[in-house]
Amino acid sequence: VSLSERGEFGFIERMRSWLPDGGATVGIGDDAAVVETTGNSVVAATDALVEGVHFRSDWSSPSDTGFKAVSVNVSDIAAMGACPRWILLALCAPPETTEEVLRGLYEGIEEACAAYGTELVGGDTVRAPQLTLVVTAIGELEGKEPVTRSGAEVGDVVAVTGPLGRAAVGVNLLLSQDAKDSSPEDAIACMAAHRRPRARVDAGAQLHQVAAHAAIDLSDGLGSDARRLSESSGVGFEIDLGRVPVAPEAGRIAAARGWDIERIVLGGGEDFELLVALPREQLEGTDWIEIGRVVDDGLWLVRDGQSVPLPDEGYDHFRT
Amino acid sequence: VSLSERGEFGFIERMRSWLPDGGATVGIGDDAAVVETTGNSVVAATDALVEGVHFRSDWSSPSDTGFKAVSVNVSDIAAMGACPRWILLALCAPPETTEEVLRGLYEGIEEACAAYGTELVGGDTVRAPQLTLVVTAIGELEGKEPVTRSGAEVGDVVAVTGPLGRAAVGVNLLLSQDAKDSSPEDAIACMAAHRRPRARVDAGAQLHQVAAHAAIDLSDGLGSDARRLSESSGVGFEIDLGRVPVAPEAGRIAAARGWDIERIVLGGGEDFELLVALPREQLEGTDWIEIGRVVDDGLWLVRDGQSVPLPDEGYDHFRT
Repeated sequence: VSLSERGEFGFIERMRSWLPDGGATVGIGDDAAVVETTGNSVVAATDALVEGVHFRSDWSSPSDTGFKAVSVNVSDIAAMGACPRWILLALCAPPETTEEVLRGLYEGIEEACAAYGTELVGGDTVRAPQLTLVVTAIGELEGKEPVTRSGAEVGDVVAVTGPLGRAAVGVNLLLSQDAKDSSPEDAIACMAAHRRPRARVDAGAQLHQVAAHAAIDLSDGLGSDARRLSESSGVGFEIDLGRVPVAPEAGRIAAARGWDIERIVLGGGEDFELLVALPREQLEGTDWIEIGRVVDDGLWLVRDGQSVPLPDEGYDHFRT
Repeated sequence: VSLSERGEFGFIERMRSWLPDGGATVGIGDDAAVVETTGNSVVAATDALVEGVHFRSDWSSPSDTGFKAVSVNVSDIAAMGACPRWILLALCAPPETTEEVLRGLYEGIEEACAAYGTELVGGDTVRAPQLTLVVTAIGELEGKEPVTRSGAEVGDVVAVTGPLGRAAVGVNLLLSQDAKDSSPEDAIACMAAHRRPRARVDAGAQLHQVAAHAAIDLSDGLGSDARRLSESSGVGFEIDLGRVPVAPEAGRIAAARGWDIERIVLGGGEDFELLVALPREQLEGTDWIEIGRVVDDGLWLVRDGQSVPLPDEGYDHFRT
């Protein structure tokens, strides 16, 4: 059964039967969703995933794509130190999209909602030439101050909340269409990191406990996200390349294939770990990894004891 | 200058220079937007406008399209009896999109934000084969109860907040590529209603004053939106065709061209007036137009004194 056979309103009826009952005051099926908030701050982010640009249907299952569409938005909420709560989905789909695909997308969305404690409360379904998922995530600060990109202070430690490089190695494996000379476990872990990233909601909730000065989620690569954090804060960053934690699976595959792991980590993106600037004494008690420090100005990479300008290798959607 | 020459981040810098400074705690340029709410309810809606499906670039200017993308979402917030406050925009655009087009889109968005008292606080910009604007509108109930689709009661008056048919006649004129035998003023008014609809925020704010039981915005046509309101409320509707207010411009053009105005009004859509069920005694004091009543069951159209089943002519995005 395709969308064009079911029709828009037939599909919405059916889709509602796939979803659990939620806690929204007004959920799916009215003009707008109504939710009850605590505190007086609401945090909102919207991100689009376009087939052929952000995902490929021959690489990712519909469920992967649904999961990822929620993750990338929840990650933005977590990077503000906020708690993600509600999800809206604008689904743009070709008329020939099958119910199997739609069902898979919503399964992935529901799995992500369950993982993050969020609820799908509304959306829109429209015809489009290319499958596109635009998710809006709404979260709450629950009385706390937002952790922005602009508060890093000279002397802060720069840390990441986990190892990097899996998703970018996963994409390279998928592009090379050949994972045969890698360990299957390593290849699967890296491809899964691309297909079904996990937002660091736990680390986001920790940002206040460590009095973090600034944070950003690593979506475009350590190089360009560090640049963004430092520019927003009006300070410089010095990154010790030797301290940057490379995910072991990613490191092994890159080594076996002769891929430049430095470039992958700096330019690869989609790790969705948080990059945080915080007071040095606060790092203790976290399992975050110190990778550098906030300095007066400039963006520096310390490689083999030599300080060099940080390469600008991040992903830009429009540059070719 | 195209998006691909400017780059994603170059564009975002530039776009920020086009926008006024707003009141958000954290606006455009961080991981997520942070806004301060009053009361404990937040209302959210998301709607996509896809080029070639919802708008055509040979019919509507970029500024029209930006304005409309905000209007259709603000209309959903108004139909809940809520006050629209914040806007997020996920812009999916081909790399060759020119800065002139982008500038126009944002001009229209800003004009709409100014008209509705809303603020653009965040978004995303991605590459896509088709120009698509996905807006999320967030509003507040300010301590009031939401006006849903499900509260209509037998005995209620059914009213619309203004005349219908302009936008659908406008589309028909644009499709026929020939407005020459219509009065220029009438044709312009109808085409403008399609290109740049106004959300009835004022009428939405009135819903509580008249103790409205249920409301929906007329986006898909009186026929299918009345069906949706009655089904959500578990009641029937009887619509007096003779009372349905046809916009004079639309009526004159339809008459001159032999177009079936009944079909246009019932099936045409995009009027963005509100359809409201309210206690009879409350209608006085509004300038809304009574068009029928809530009955036990069924959907009936009273035409020349005869009650007939209401035709189901609304727009469905996927049915062909």
